[in-house]
Formats: sequence, structure tokens, C-alpha cells
Amino acid sequence: MSIETKNIIVEKVKNSKIDQVDFDNLAFGSVFTDHMLVCTYKNGVWETPAIVPYQPITLDPSSKIFHYGQSIFEGMKAYKDDNGDVFLFRPLDNFKRLNISAERMCIPAIPQEYFMEGLITLLNLDKAFIPTQEGSSLYIRPFMFASGNGFHASPASEYKFIIACAPSGSYFSGKVKVLIEEKYSRSANGGVGYAKAGGNYAGQFYPTQLAIDKGYNQVIWTDDTNHEFIEEAGAMNIFIRINDTLMTAPTSDRILDGITRKSILEIAKDQGIKTEVRKISVKEVVEAAKDGSLKEMFGAGTAAVISPISGFGYRDTDYELPELQQSYGARLKKIITDIQYNKSEDKFGWRYKVEN
Amino acid sequence: MSIETKNIIVEKVKNSKIDQVDFDNLAFGSVFTDHMLVCTYKNGVWETPAIVPYQPITLDPSSKIFHYGQSIFEGMKAYKDDNGDVFLFRPLDNFKRLNISAERMCIPAIPQEYFMEGLITLLNLDKAFIPTQEGSSLYIRPFMFASGNGFHASPASEYKFIIACAPSGSYFSGKVKVLIEEKYSRSANGGVGYAKAGGNYAGQFYPTQLAIDKGYNQVIWTDDTNHEFIEEAGAMNIFIRINDTLMTAPTSDRILDGITRKSILEIAKDQGIKTEVRKISVKEVVEAAKDGSLKEMFGAGTAAVISPISGFGYRDTDYELPELQQSYGARLKKIITDIQYNKSEDKFGWRYKVEN
Ligand SMILES: Cc1ncc(COP(=O)(O)O)c(C=O)c1O
Ligand SMILES: Cc1ncc(COP(=O)(O)O)c(C=O)c1O
Repeated sequence: MSIETKNIIVEKVKNSKIDQVDFDNLAFGSVFTDHMLVCTYKNGVWETPAIVPYQPITLDPSSKIFHYGQSIFEGMKAYKDDNGDVFLFRPLDNFKRLNISAERMCIPAIPQEYFMEGLITLLNLDKAFIPTQEGSSLYIRPFMFASGNGFHASPASEYKFIIACAPSGSYFSGKVKVLIEEKYSRSANGGVGYAKAGGNYAGQFYPTQLAIDKGYNQVIWTDDTNHEFIEEAGAMNIFIRINDTLMTAPTSDRILDGITRKSILEIAKDQGIKTEVRKISVKEVVEAAKDGSLKEMFGAGTAAVISPISGFGYRDTDYELPELQQSYGARLKKIITDIQYNKSEDKFGWRYKVEN
Repeated sequence: MSIETKNIIVEKVKNSKIDQVDFDNLAFGSVFTDHMLVCTYKNGVWETPAIVPYQPITLDPSSKIFHYGQSIFEGMKAYKDDNGDVFLFRPLDNFKRLNISAERMCIPAIPQEYFMEGLITLLNLDKAFIPTQEGSSLYIRPFMFASGNGFHASPASEYKFIIACAPSGSYFSGKVKVLIEEKYSRSANGGVGYAKAGGNYAGQFYPTQLAIDKGYNQVIWTDDTNHEFIEEAGAMNIFIRINDTLMTAPTSDRILDGITRKSILEIAKDQGIKTEVRKISVKEVVEAAKDGSLKEMFGAGTAAVISPISGFGYRDTDYELPELQQSYGARLKKIITDIQYNKSEDKFGWRYKVEN
């Protein structure tokens, strides 16, 4: 796809801050590239996007973002191969999901050309920030929020769409231990759980902190009605392998339709792994853990890729998962990351080359 | 209560903008007073609050408020009587609720002296902005949000607590027509519905817009499990009168513990009105509307005080409510506003005089 950038205003930095980045010790999402894309919605239209030096945002104290949580985001990555070529992974799916989130949160949809042209132009400018260290990548954060003013609890009339990028290392270090949650919930039937809406994340902080205090890393959410079925984790969908079947919950209005999740499902099928997309009860997982048929569990998401789970807590009992020599998780992670980093053929057509 | 303001830094405006306020045509929450209170949480402590000229806020694009909806607010009012004395209504309840919301959203609690001293000092400075027109008051918006940086989905390490004020007219003009919602939901069991968390409000915008498009003003939320019971409205608790009994739903982790709601319950009891706090099924409300025993419905909240409901829609049928000569709503509204505006004795001890 060739990108015409005539629609984007570009103001370059005078001095790059790339020398300040310690590429060998990257945390997740805490240092940023030289530029960012900013697009303003005003008087019923999205104005021409501008790429500007990464800089603070100034807002009125009555801006609705501070009061009513009218905000959404996406999470993507750019990968650099040995030739210095840059790739994205299924970027149009992030674009589409951003607008699905936007609709639910009453935020005006962003046009595809602003999103894609803006992103590609930005990546070309800040290409030098894409790390090549093992497990590192450029984390890309497109986000939209209500910048319009007023204390009336109603949608704003002005919005910002911004893309900022952060050279990043891995999200989790090592295996994660999870807690199956029975008291708190992430989302309601008929709520906003399927949208990447800001409020969904802050709502998880407190229960997650309680879990961390008990020695876990993450919460596994269950349905809010009876806490009977496994839903997802904070920023990952969850896969469960019982015997040789790899399972994940169906998406719904409570669960995010993860791009990693659906890619893993396709790769697993292609690999001849038996998959099932169905409601998974906590009860069957606990029983499988007890009788040894529970072989592995892992989280799947852009930030953490595939994150193996070492064990889970449920009702004050901890269940350990076996150490497998040949785990589905490790096998699927290699296949997906080889596609992402342009190390293998891409039979699915997911890789997207960023052209200069 | 005497307030020592020695703990607050005050920087006054050079020129007041009071002349720009059209007090006879006040909308809700759209013009602001000269000053605001700002308090920063950093390195594990709330720093000394400062009152500064009302001014924009500058934040890094990675500030967590833009991404994870870690924000809460309160809504209060200041009332001026004929002598020019200024009053608040149960302000400590707002203070306590703010910290209840803070805990759920992993925001550090604000100390009472910062909240109360800050508010009183601010009100004394901006007293001239408190309107005296019928139905008008100074709307006060204390809010807290994550100002710390980084794309990791975890609580921020820096926060702002701000109080801004807006001379305001009524929230709704006239009676409101409501839609009993059966598809979308406001909050989950085990979720954050009882907190005044930003995301709870943005999540309501889309379903509310759909209701507005059908000719309603507001949505009445029902439980997300079966949509069987009446919960509350967007920014009001709901009261329903069947025959001579005034009912409202019990608060829960899904429903905000409204200060107007609990005050109305006490006043009603004091007035000899029979009250019931119990689950109210949509079915019984529809049946009562059909057989004529449904006498009135109203919303109760700080912004809208008591807001009479003219009728409701449910499953494509509209139900009208009778025009009563002697409604509970009007009677209770007079009693509560007379207390608020210092026009009557305050037997409950709710009025709080703001001393110079
Ligand atoms: C709640 C939630 N679930 C799952 C995911 C995984 O989705 P994806 O694979 O598209 O990154 C994410 C985020 O990235 C998320 O925020
Ligand atoms: C969701 C919700 N319910 C009810 C209320 C009413 O509460 P109060 O009477 O304390 O203003 C409010 C807000 O003010 C609210 O936001």
C-alpha cells in the first residue's frame, strides 16, 4: 500500500533525543520517541493531522477527560528486521477496533487515512527508535479523548486523536501467577468491556493490587453474574489447554476481541492443534488442575505477546501448572513473533511493511 | 467549625472576570470562577494545596488520565442567602464519598483538612460568583486524576486534586421523560458503579444518546444480570411513588450512595410519608402505571435536586404519569432547598455555614 502524506503537517524536532535512550535497558512504555501525531476534532470535523515534537498537552480544568472518562486507546507494535525494514502486525484491525471503541464511548470515528497515513509518517520519522534487541519493539499508543469543556455529564464537542510511541522491552518478566477473581468484576453485560475504554483499566487496579498483595501478578476475570466462567485478564485474553485441546472464551460485550487471541486461534488450527472457543467454567479448570489434565495456561495480547502462567489461585488454594518441554504457548509464540519480526513466511497475510 | 487557612498557598487573580458572567442566563457548569484549588500528590504525599487563578492544566501525553480512566469526582453546591451568607449542604459526606471512590480507583485519599480548608478558602475568595437567582447556585466540582506518566496499565505515582467552581442554573429544564433500559448497563456486580469514577459516566453517553434520539431525556438503568430491577439514572437516584408509599432502590456496589437520596428519605420519614428502601422490579412499576397506582417518579441528585419525571418508556410502550396537585416531589424539594438556601430551620443539622 502506498501512502501519500500530503494530508499531514509535519514539524520536526530540532534535536533528536535518541541519544538519551538506553536501548539495552528498556522498560515498558516509559520513554518516548521524538514526535507524536495530533489530530483535533472541532466543529464536527477532524482537522488535518499534524506530526509535532513530542510535547505536553494543555487542557482546561473542565475538559471532559478529567471528569467523565471519555477516552479510548489502542496498543500496537512496530518491529524492525535485520535489514532495518519496519513492520506492523494487522494494523487495520487496530484501526477498526479503535472506531468500535469510539462508537461505544460516543467519540467521533477517525478516518482510516488519518490513522494509517499518520502512523506510517510518524514511524518513518522515528524509525531510529525501533529497538532490535530480543523481545523489544516500538510500542505504539493511538488514543482518543474528550478535550471539550464543561461540567455537564454529556459527550464533549471536541476531541483529540494522538499517536505516541515508546521503545519498549517486555511487559512481564518471567511467568505470571494469576488469581481467579470471585468478588470484583471487570465489566457488565451491556457495558463497555469490549471497548478499549480508559475506565475499564482503572477499575481493575484495586482488585489487581489486592491480588499482588497476596503474591499474584494478575487477576483472571470471571463473569459478574455468578463468577462461574473465565473471561480474560487485565490486558490479555486467556488460553487454557486441557489435555491436547487449546481453549479460549468466546468474545462478548464484556470481553475484548484481541488481535493476538484471534491470530493464535488461526495459527493453532494451522498447526493441527485442536482448538475450542467456548465458555470455560472455573470448575472444570480447577478439576483439570486436580486430575492433571490441565497442561498449560497463557495470556495473549500485543503488549505481553504470549505470557505463560505458572499457576493460579482460587478460593485460597494455589494450583501449580506443570513445566512442559513442548508447550503450545512457546510454539505459538515463536510462530507469531517470527511473522511479526519478518523472520518467517507470512502465510496469513498479517504482516504489514511500512514503506518509506 | 473554624478553619485555619495557614496551610494553603493563595495566589489571587489580578483582574476578576466576574463582569463577564451573565448571571441571568446561566447554563450548567460552563462558566468558571476566578480561582481553583490545586493539590499535587508526589513521592507518596499530598503537597500543600494552592489556590491559583483558574488556568489550564499541562500534562504529558503519557499521563495515565488519558489512557486508563483513573479519575473520580464529586458534585456539591454553595448557596447564598438574602444576607449574603454562604452555605454548603452536608459537605463532609462529599468528602467521605470522594475518598471511598478514591480507594476503589487506587487513588490516594485526600486529607480532610486539605479538602475542607481548601474549599472554604476558595469559596471565600470567589464568593461574588455565587448566584442568587431562583434555582441557581455555585456548582462545586472537586476532582482527582492520575497525572503520572507511562503506558503501563497500573496505578500512577502522581495525582492532582482540584476544586473548580461554576455559577450554574438548573441541570434539567422542565420534567424529564425516561427510558427503562434493557440492553445496555451502567455497572457490574463487583464493579465500580458505587464510585464516582469518570468511566461510569462516559459509558452512559451512547445508550443515553440512543434514548434521546427516541425522544427521551434520560435512561433509567436496571441490573445488568436480568434487567429486572430499577437501579438509578445517569446522575440521579430514582424515587417511585406507588399509592402513598415512596420507594427507592437500596444502594449497592452498583449504585451511587446519593446524598440527596438519603436526605430525601429522612425528610420523607419526618414528614410522615411512608418510605420503603427495597428492590423495585420493572414489572411492578409497569403494572402500577397500568392500574393507576403509580403516582409519581422523580430523580434526586445534587445537580438536578429533585427532577420530576413525566413518563417512562419500556419495551416500545410509553407510560404517562399523572399531573399531581400535591406531589411528594414538589413538597420534598421545597423542604430540602429551603434548608440549603437557609430559608428554614435545619432540624437535621445538614447546613454548613461557610465562615469568612
Ligand atoms: C482487556 C484486554 N484484553 C485483551 C487484550 C489483548 O488484545 P490484543 O491482542 O489486540 O492486544 C488487551 C489489549 O491489548 C486488553 O486490553
Ligand atoms: C450516578 C449518580 N447517581 C446519583 C447521584 C446523586 O448523588 P448526590 O445526591 O450525592 O448528588 C449522582 C450524582 O451526583 C450520580 O452521579
